[in-house]
Amino acid sequence: TTNKLLIATGVGGGGSNGGGIVSFEEISTGLNVFFLLFAASFIFMMQTGFAMLCAGSIRQKNVKNIMLKNILDSCIGAIGFWSVGYAFAFGGASPDTKSFIGYEGFFLANVTSGTELISWFFQFAMACTAATIVAGTVAERCKMEAYLCYSLFLSGFVYPVIVHSVWSESGFLSAFNDNPPFGCGMHDFAGSGVIHLTGGVTALLAAKILGPRIGRFYDRNGIEIEDPKPFPPHSVALQVLGTFILWLGWYGFNPGSILTISSINSGDVAALAAVNTTIAAASGCLSAMLIDMLIYRRETGETAYDITMVMNGTLCGLVAITAGCATVAPWGAMVIGIVAGWVYYLWSNLLVKFKIDDAVDAIPVHLGGGSWGCIAVGLLSEPTRTAKAFGDHGHYGWFYMWGQGSGDGRLLAAQICGVLWIITWVCAIMTPLFLLLKQLDLFRVDELEEEVGCDFSHHKGFAYDSSGVPDDDTLEKFK
Amino acid sequence: TTNKLLIATGVGGGGSNGGGIVSFEEISTGLNVFFLLFAASFIFMMQTGFAMLCAGSIRQKNVKNIMLKNILDSCIGAIGFWSVGYAFAFGGASPDTKSFIGYEGFFLANVTSGTELISWFFQFAMACTAATIVAGTVAERCKMEAYLCYSLFLSGFVYPVIVHSVWSESGFLSAFNDNPPFGCGMHDFAGSGVIHLTGGVTALLAAKILGPRIGRFYDRNGIEIEDPKPFPPHSVALQVLGTFILWLGWYGFNPGSILTISSINSGDVAALAAVNTTIAAASGCLSAMLIDMLIYRRETGETAYDITMVMNGTLCGLVAITAGCATVAPWGAMVIGIVAGWVYYLWSNLLVKFKIDDAVDAIPVHLGGGSWGCIAVGLLSEPTRTAKAFGDHGHYGWFYMWGQGSGDGRLLAAQICGVLWIITWVCAIMTPLFLLLKQLDLFRVDELEEEVGCDFSHHKGFAYDSSGVPDDDTLEKFK
Amino acid sequence: TTNKLLIATGVGGGGSNGGGIVSFEEISTGLNVFFLLFAASFIFMMQTGFAMLCAGSIRQKNVKNIMLKNILDSCIGAIGFWSVGYAFAFGGASPDTKSFIGYEGFFLANVTSGTELISWFFQFAMACTAATIVAGTVAERCKMEAYLCYSLFLSGFVYPVIVHSVWSESGFLSAFNDNPPFGCGMHDFAGSGVIHLTGGVTALLAAKILGPRIGRFYDRNGIEIEDPKPFPPHSVALQVLGTFILWLGWYGFNPGSILTISSINSGDVAALAAVNTTIAAASGCLSAMLIDMLIYRRETGETAYDITMVMNGTLCGLVAITAGCATVAPWGAMVIGIVAGWVYYLWSNLLVKFKIDDAVDAIPVHLGGGSWGCIAVGLLSEPTRTAKAFGDHGHYGWFYMWGQGSGDGRLLAAQICGVLWIITWVCAIMTPLFLLLKQLDLFRVDELEEEVGCDFSHHKGFAYDSSGVPDDDTLEKFK
Repeated sequence: TTNKLLIATGVGGGGSNGGGIVSFEEISTGLNVFFLLFAASFIFMMQTGFAMLCAGSIRQKNVKNIMLKNILDSCIGAIGFWSVGYAFAFGGASPDTKSFIGYEGFFLANVTSGTELISWFFQFAMACTAATIVAGTVAERCKMEAYLCYSLFLSGFVYPVIVHSVWSESGFLSAFNDNPPFGCGMHDFAGSGVIHLTGGVTALLAAKILGPRIGRFYDRNGIEIEDPKPFPPHSVALQVLGTFILWLGWYGFNPGSILTISSINSGDVAALAAVNTTIAAASGCLSAMLIDMLIYRRETGETAYDITMVMNGTLCGLVAITAGCATVAPWGAMVIGIVAGWVYYLWSNLLVKFKIDDAVDAIPVHLGGGSWGCIAVGLLSEPTRTAKAFGDHGHYGWFYMWGQGSGDGRLLAAQICGVLWIITWVCAIMTPLFLLLKQLDLFRVDELEEEVGCDFSHHKGFAYDSSGVPDDDTLEKFK
Repeated sequence: TTNKLLIATGVGGGGSNGGGIVSFEEISTGLNVFFLLFAASFIFMMQTGFAMLCAGSIRQKNVKNIMLKNILDSCIGAIGFWSVGYAFAFGGASPDTKSFIGYEGFFLANVTSGTELISWFFQFAMACTAATIVAGTVAERCKMEAYLCYSLFLSGFVYPVIVHSVWSESGFLSAFNDNPPFGCGMHDFAGSGVIHLTGGVTALLAAKILGPRIGRFYDRNGIEIEDPKPFPPHSVALQVLGTFILWLGWYGFNPGSILTISSINSGDVAALAAVNTTIAAASGCLSAMLIDMLIYRRETGETAYDITMVMNGTLCGLVAITAGCATVAPWGAMVIGIVAGWVYYLWSNLLVKFKIDDAVDAIPVHLGGGSWGCIAVGLLSEPTRTAKAFGDHGHYGWFYMWGQGSGDGRLLAAQICGVLWIITWVCAIMTPLFLLLKQLDLFRVDELEEEVGCDFSHHKGFAYDSSGVPDDDTLEKFK
Repeated sequence: TTNKLLIATGVGGGGSNGGGIVSFEEISTGLNVFFLLFAASFIFMMQTGFAMLCAGSIRQKNVKNIMLKNILDSCIGAIGFWSVGYAFAFGGASPDTKSFIGYEGFFLANVTSGTELISWFFQFAMACTAATIVAGTVAERCKMEAYLCYSLFLSGFVYPVIVHSVWSESGFLSAFNDNPPFGCGMHDFAGSGVIHLTGGVTALLAAKILGPRIGRFYDRNGIEIEDPKPFPPHSVALQVLGTFILWLGWYGFNPGSILTISSINSGDVAALAAVNTTIAAASGCLSAMLIDMLIYRRETGETAYDITMVMNGTLCGLVAITAGCATVAPWGAMVIGIVAGWVYYLWSNLLVKFKIDDAVDAIPVHLGGGSWGCIAVGLLSEPTRTAKAFGDHGHYGWFYMWGQGSGDGRLLAAQICGVLWIITWVCAIMTPLFLLLKQLDLFRVDELEEEVGCDFSHHKGFAYDSSGVPDDDTLEKFK
């Protein structure tokens, strides 16, 4: 079954393995490594997107602080996921057993297979995404020490356990186990639940325990402000840059989650994921913008296009399609996107109502969009597409089952269980951690530091400096 | 003809189709899907580039407005191209018939093939590019409603008809029909004409009908200003960021237009496209910069390196090589780039002379560069390279035919016809639309809104906000 | 050995070669072209990263100037490398001869093979990287003419000679020659030495000969300032954007240097490169940040997280792993990264001590990290991994040889020779050039131009302009 042939040597450069004999397996392996290298690089690009979006969304005096957190996220995620996280998530899994946590492959010791190394790289990029979601929510008031501590703990332990349960072959909710719960297991193709819901729930807990920024809902003396005061983003340009980069990164995130591109159906699955990602993003954008326009017009009589709605609607559509991108039809992606726009709007207003301060509205996007995305899979997964991505187990979206005259809601049940499991696990582990940090006075910067901004108080000065601009005298002299 | 072998399962993750049996066709399909996923993602990245370039080029008071248009472009393009545009462009085509418009595949209904789904994704990214070109030209004065209306109409109908005529197998100008006009059809490999000329002509019509910004050529009372007043870009940093991203995106745009990478010659064609793209960009940059330096020095006696020239020269070189990137030799790419730099300079000055106000100089780049690029193909297409990309039909660039002692100008004729067809079609359809919008008073914001800027008047406030910076008292207290 | 089969035609688009017959070789060629297209595009993306990082790091009055240099770098690099550079680097090489310089393939004349064309594109992207490193160091005071002259000379001649010596099959230090020095040749997989050390040494020479910016170490009258005055970066947001883009680009740089992905072991090598790149970046970041925190706290008693350290530590880790990314184990990457953080810190302080003014600290990153990276290969290259990337020649990192009870330090010797060769060659050629430029008064802008900034004096005005913001009267009128 192996065809060998000589291929020509390339002209020079770093590597030396040109001129060898190449077989079918090698092309296949090389192609798959390349595919995940591409996909993971695009996912890693999302770190840039988050950094720009978060920095743009907050006040100028905390730009260095938030960006530092975004960079350190990636670095700590790398070390945490390399040392233990990846082993906890995938180590020693096999479809004929179930386990709570993996236990092999710490520090990638002795791993030399390209397939497994690139799989680490891909999963590392995903893990960073989960960790970085929280940075924006707690911006402008969370201590760096607390953040680093949380970040290591999430990417090294909390998140890997969730990954293990849903994506490992031994996971108790996994669709890839020989004996999955509900006969199908949870279908979270690229991580609406595993990644975004995890990040979103953590962000909600952190925001609640940390408390709002001074002046947002309460003034300096803790007295409630009548109308919550929004803090306008310091740079919409950075926000838009970040949003576009995130959208772009999603084309690695979603199609890449097929993991191999040389296998049966994988081209179909990856292509569908790209199409659905696009349609859900667009629908989420338009839906959030329109509902905001309608309500704003009813309240004020004026028409305004709100760019925050446009950006966060897009992102919420993207988060929501992440679970179902490979299993719903394009019209289903549109439905998911439209509802995601509403979900975002609703959650954003709920947070204000409950006086929970999310500096970048990451909770509505990731918690709101992520949970909706998981549930939508249970409603809209189309049979043939689901079979291509997850195997033909006979349980599809409730809409289709109902259309076939069956009341089979097993996939929906699996999805709901998955959502509840993620929420429960994150709350059970992160609540004590955050409370402990608060108790030890490690969680929040002091009041004066907050007012002056973290950049000046902790990072040696402000992010922007125009001291170098020549004065009028110099300009005059020059002329 | 099919070789099957077992490939190893990857470790976990979203998909489930590891461990299957893989055949030659599957590797080929997977590879091609992946190739277009890569290329289309890079093309989609150009949306970010356009957004940054446009935003940087205009005045600070309209940044939110232009960026909103850029995001909405992508979203509306997605919906418009998914619902009808793609079907109009490619539906039901076959090389043995000719038709004006396609008629199959609305909403991608029943499409499950990865090859076709990813083809939609690629063509969607291209369609967005065509639509977004206009945003910059009409910036700072065009109503959002008019813009959305135009954008949907262009990506859903006007552009698909052009695509059908040039790129579909049934197109009346298509090189892929069994019986192409002039024996070869129009050769527009990646869209100098189909995309850039379409966008550029639309931008010219819009700019003419919309009129210049107040204070550019005429003052508030409509009285002509002696020397046209340039509005300096508010951020060159954003412009450069946008330009670099666009250049980068072109490496998806041009090499990606081969559509499949596993076929005969496709590696040669894609590689040539990347090389030519690079050389034309560099030549366009240097050529525009040098001509501007020469003329500026003659006029003022001073030497100045103009970054606007550098950026737009680069872009004009890129636009111009888009048609011929796969068919000209590298030296031809240099010639195309050099002339593109002059074309840009000429058009830019012509617009000022005729008092047509293009806020980002998109017309010189896309109309000027696009039309020159199409014609250059008729002059410089090299026989063996053309044969690899379009088949060996015997009609090449006039320079080569003339070198062979033949006067065969058929390819050149086809190119000129193509340019005329695109200009005619766009003018015929868009002129009435823009005039109607103007008549209904939907096209242009009112005078006061324009002066105060669209961000404040339509989008709830300015794009930059430094209200969060601590005052000196707070800083003092902190120390 | 050739399997042919029919593949389906894609739906329309630019190219025409769908529907052909495809063979094993074609898939392999197509895949390899695609791989280098991806890798080179990511490397080219680093130009954006350098532009943003450099622009953010300097004072506002020179933003246009530095960005112009970054764009022109790419353009001049393209022309220089196309005309002569590539031919000098790789032309006519063969493993059974040795030569100082290549001599074939000027202007890519007659090259139609996709493999070779894409190889040019990849090597062009690398060459631009080498050239652009210097731009940041000499920012704010170097004349444009001198810069363009240097840039052409480096990418067209100085750098190609180094490439030839290390990466060409005929290079006198090359690991790909039949008879490599020390039995193994220099192992610089992706260019810690060839690219970064070359750029770094050039930057050091330029900075020394050009002299510091006015007011940095000496005041306007040349009198030494007691405490060197740092010039704060004008925009940390741009710096972070640049750093993230550079990190991302490294995933093309390092894994891409395997050059073909369809060959034996190439998947393993590329995947390892991605993993090691990640771990070294993260380690470099944390190591530089921590050492700075410790020393800063000892000196001032305060805790501060310094974002400059975080960014440059990351970059120095990336530069250092570039040579060994394919040959060290992940723990080795961590060691390389940790030491790189210290190396950066040390070099950065040394420069200040010796009053050498590097406007963006490119010398510590590229010279410091690059030389350490080359030497680290001689210490930490692991046998099986080295065999996969460079062939099984029996000489590995000194640590492993020593572990096997052998004192074989040949690889280490080859690395040290390589470092010395690069330093010597660059000094020998660039020193006279820079001295000549200085002698001819072409190197440095005059004092008044420097004070007013290059943007105003040479580029028609400043990079940021807020003149378009409406005044309060207009705003009032609007309300």
